[in-house]
Amino acid sequence: MIYLDNAGTTPVLKECADIVKECLEKDFYNPSALYNPSVELSRKIKAAREDILTALRGDGNLIFTSSGSESDNTALFCTKKPNGSRIVVSATEHPAVYNCAMELMQRGYDVVFCGVDEYGRVKEDEFRSLINDNTSLISIMHVNNETGCVNDIKKLCKIAKSIKPGVLFHSDGVQAVGKIKVNLTDLGVDLYSVSGHKIHAPKGIAGLYIKSGVNIRPYIFGGGQEGGLRSSTENVGGILSFSYALKQATAKINENAERVASLRQKIIDGVPSEFRVIDCPDHSPYILYMAMPYVRGEVMLHSLEKYGILIGTGSACSSKKTHKRLPTLLGLGKEYENGTIRVSMNRFTTENDIDYFINQLNLEYNTLKKYVRG
Amino acid sequence: MIYLDNAGTTPVLKECADIVKECLEKDFYNPSALYNPSVELSRKIKAAREDILTALRGDGNLIFTSSGSESDNTALFCTKKPNGSRIVVSATEHPAVYNCAMELMQRGYDVVFCGVDEYGRVKEDEFRSLINDNTSLISIMHVNNETGCVNDIKKLCKIAKSIKPGVLFHSDGVQAVGKIKVNLTDLGVDLYSVSGHKIHAPKGIAGLYIKSGVNIRPYIFGGGQEGGLRSSTENVGGILSFSYALKQATAKINENAERVASLRQKIIDGVPSEFRVIDCPDHSPYILYMAMPYVRGEVMLHSLEKYGILIGTGSACSSKKTHKRLPTLLGLGKEYENGTIRVSMNRFTTENDIDYFINQLNLEYNTLKKYVRG
Repeated sequence: MIYLDNAGTTPVLKECADIVKECLEKDFYNPSALYNPSVELSRKIKAAREDILTALRGDGNLIFTSSGSESDNTALFCTKKPNGSRIVVSATEHPAVYNCAMELMQRGYDVVFCGVDEYGRVKEDEFRSLINDNTSLISIMHVNNETGCVNDIKKLCKIAKSIKPGVLFHSDGVQAVGKIKVNLTDLGVDLYSVSGHKIHAPKGIAGLYIKSGVNIRPYIFGGGQEGGLRSSTENVGGILSFSYALKQATAKINENAERVASLRQKIIDGVPSEFRVIDCPDHSPYILYMAMPYVRGEVMLHSLEKYGILIGTGSACSSKKTHKRLPTLLGLGKEYENGTIRVSMNRFTTENDIDYFINQLNLEYNTLKKYVRG
Repeated sequence: MIYLDNAGTTPVLKECADIVKECLEKDFYNPSALYNPSVELSRKIKAAREDILTALRGDGNLIFTSSGSESDNTALFCTKKPNGSRIVVSATEHPAVYNCAMELMQRGYDVVFCGVDEYGRVKEDEFRSLINDNTSLISIMHVNNETGCVNDIKKLCKIAKSIKPGVLFHSDGVQAVGKIKVNLTDLGVDLYSVSGHKIHAPKGIAGLYIKSGVNIRPYIFGGGQEGGLRSSTENVGGILSFSYALKQATAKINENAERVASLRQKIIDGVPSEFRVIDCPDHSPYILYMAMPYVRGEVMLHSLEKYGILIGTGSACSSKKTHKRLPTLLGLGKEYENGTIRVSMNRFTTENDIDYFINQLNLEYNTLKKYVRG
């Protein structure tokens, strides 16, 4: 099996699975209880939180949530925003931000969507023009989950705060963390979403960074866990394995990125010439988005699956939707818009995997294109 | 280790840990993707959902959430409620309901708290008097997490709907499911919260039952998972192990309850005569709540911990709070209010465990009472 859909989710590290199993079988206690095994778990959770903040150079708090989506929802809904104030998000946000923004629009906020360039990056001039004195919240993703393009969050954050000091800046960093260098203090963001299952930790665990001095309201009310900001019995195994996975992902982040970048370049050089490759100058090396003329992405996905190669057609979260925002936003044109595929690697992807993928992709494409109008 | 704090959380079944590990190591795919391994996981999630609905005799939908707290929050916040309408909850609700109700009060709803009897059960007459034509939502827990008393949800639901047809009735069933017989259709509730980690499944997985014909809004917006009602990449291992654990818990529910009931009676018969035991005629056999005069609950907890016996002092979710609602509501009186302990068993608790516990409890109490004003 050659798994090239790592932007959707990643295989879990054996060590993470072991941590989870140990928490389930031995350290099953409720961290809120008063006896020692619980106090000990509570201490481990605290250490995990600090380790993640250290790895991401965060100056503030990190609350554990159950998913990147929950983190995004918390950022969008629980920040203080005067009624009717302006909220700026990019047009290519993940549905977990995009659909919150749509909901906030329904609730009477002045939600505006910032356009993107041909790679999916936020257009700086347009962004600047959208920020006004009435703007309360901005949410721009760090690495786009479909094209892999990187938004210059530090710059956008600076622009925003120079126009409207005090505006809150959230970034969905789910595809950035563990893949490209993330220094939260340097980025200057107020809120930042991270997720475990994109970096070889289990599903069901994620986090939201909250910069020092930034106040949010709770999203889940209850027993007061996570400093009162996210009540629920803590998912101990998830938390500890997330921290472990992040440490592993950031340990050799540059070496890994460099190696994977060469594989990405290999794919770019090896795909059929008819393909349109979205190769943003600022990109995550782990993601490559392409469009085939006339051949449908799903058809290619299933063709490659016969050879044990798994790829995506775009965001897994929108894979079953017929309406797709991205191809239109990138201006791909009619013949390409149903032909998008996303190849996303992880740090264990080998050159052999990629050689085999390129070979089969070419073979299949040459077969498939005979059957379509071209 | 004799673990008697199962209302806080439960040891995880080995089989559940194995299911989780298999999902982490082998079936790590994103269920939303289009290739076969994902489609297969999607099918398994569907089957797990149906199995849980069958086990609980639900006629409707079940959405998977990350915790009982999230389920409660979804029920309280995502049901349709005219602004300012009345919301009735019991005074002894778990913080996950109670604190949502407090929040809704702040948002302008007419939230009223129904009083309870000396066991913690909702007072029927008072309940009836609180329902009016303006009432939109009711939330009454099935089994109280501290006293173990059982509310007659079927009757309360009937009363409510006879006064205000169309009122929505939610019940937090986290302490009921797998412990006492739960027939959702017979209960007549519109919404019902269930949780995995109270029935030997992992933390981080729970569910909300939604009766056929009842509409709620999403709590977490995003990629449209769970029929659009709860977006997030599915916690596959959690979901499959939850379904397994529930099947096991309900398989011999009566036999288990009968055996545990005899252990509970043994405790009642064996505790020092000065103790006040809250022994509700309608109770979960798994939970027993007691109060000692002058001796503090925490002190007893730590004393018993020396012998490897773990008990609770009340809800784990409020164990660190200094203000406790329950002792006051039960009218325990000043000398007892700091002396509450909760013993909560599971279906694997043995007679030996309980004999040892009773013995050590008596020994410790006789020592401790010498040092306190009595």
